[in-house]
Amino acid sequence: MTRAVGLIQTCCDLPLCLDSSIIEVLAAGLAAYQGKALVNSVTAEDERLDAILPLVKRYGAAVIALPNDEEEIPEEPARRLELARKIVDVATGKYGIAIEDIVFDPLAMPVGADTLLVLRTLETIALLREELGVNMTLGASNVSFGMPDRGSIGAAFLPMAIASGLTTAIMDARSPQLVQSVKAADLLTNRDPWGAAWIAAHRARQAQAT
Amino acid sequence: MTRAVGLIQTCCDLPLCLDSSIIEVLAAGLAAYQGKALVNSVTAEDERLDAILPLVKRYGAAVIALPNDEEEIPEEPARRLELARKIVDVATGKYGIAIEDIVFDPLAMPVGADTLLVLRTLETIALLREELGVNMTLGASNVSFGMPDRGSIGAAFLPMAIASGLTTAIMDARSPQLVQSVKAADLLTNRDPWGAAWIAAHRARQAQAT
Repeated sequence: MTRAVGLIQTCCDLPLCLDSSIIEVLAAGLAAYQGKALVNSVTAEDERLDAILPLVKRYGAAVIALPNDEEEIPEEPARRLELARKIVDVATGKYGIAIEDIVFDPLAMPVGADTLLVLRTLETIALLREELGVNMTLGASNVSFGMPDRGSIGAAFLPMAIASGLTTAIMDARSPQLVQSVKAADLLTNRDPWGAAWIAAHRARQAQAT
Repeated sequence: MTRAVGLIQTCCDLPLCLDSSIIEVLAAGLAAYQGKALVNSVTAEDERLDAILPLVKRYGAAVIALPNDEEEIPEEPARRLELARKIVDVATGKYGIAIEDIVFDPLAMPVGADTLLVLRTLETIALLREELGVNMTLGASNVSFGMPDRGSIGAAFLPMAIASGLTTAIMDARSPQLVQSVKAADLLTNRDPWGAAWIAAHRARQAQAT
């Protein structure tokens, strides 16, 4: 981890997300990292909270938080909210981490497994926004797992999730279809003042085409 | 209107939407029409309600209802809900029209005029669903008026509106991008059991391509 962080930071200026289930490896990565890292991830399990959050605080990092505990990955949005609230209480109350540095993953599940799962995810996103006002992220491609034309499913899902309150996503930024759907959602939800970004992107594409 | 309705019904089996601001013309169209027509439109103005709703009831039609009155097209979702409630009360209470035959237009406005307007439309849709549980329709292309790449804006807007509670749209059914976004939204909101329609459409495209 130490070597990987050092090597990547010599050739890339983007912020990194450090991911390991082993605390010592995360600690080594954070110690080597220059800047504000994102740690993946902490759950609502007491043991994980008390192992990971001190590291997040010490290194001024942000952390992805999963609303599940040792017993379950809950299906019910209300139970996910309860676990999220516990994480917020411990992170801000016990460890003094700023709430904007806790990025919740509302758990996007494959629509191909059960066509009710995406509605539950959207409901969780809306609840987390209304009750906690937190940042969120999710694996956008999870929802289309196993289905044909995954791009079109993602391009419909992301605007829905953004309208419900999603603030970031783990998504394929090389897909023009997905990127365009997120930019359109930004425009439609008043995150692109005067539509300037939308119009500028259109002009850039026109200039490239000629 | 009488000749137009007769002529179109000789060559097309789809249901028609009859649109005129002149009551006598609507009445003539409804008298000539075979089947259940959709009347465009009634507002919350007393005079319009009492002119149009008796026709809707007499001919067993459905009606598009606009939540505005003689004074204003209200910007605030709560005021649009108030006017919608008035229309429901008069249509169901005074004229005995079934609530599912009143199709509300939550008024989609161009995002290019004001980037807050689409959020107000989405909020109106959610309010109408929660408070009245009514069917809705809107002119989907209104939101992208004057902007470049209108297709991508529509393909992001429709899933948002459907997730909020929109049940139908006036949209360009010849656009594969828009149709695919609506089908994906159906899949993601549990309106396509087992994803059967999504998968069948994919197979039909594959068969056509070979």
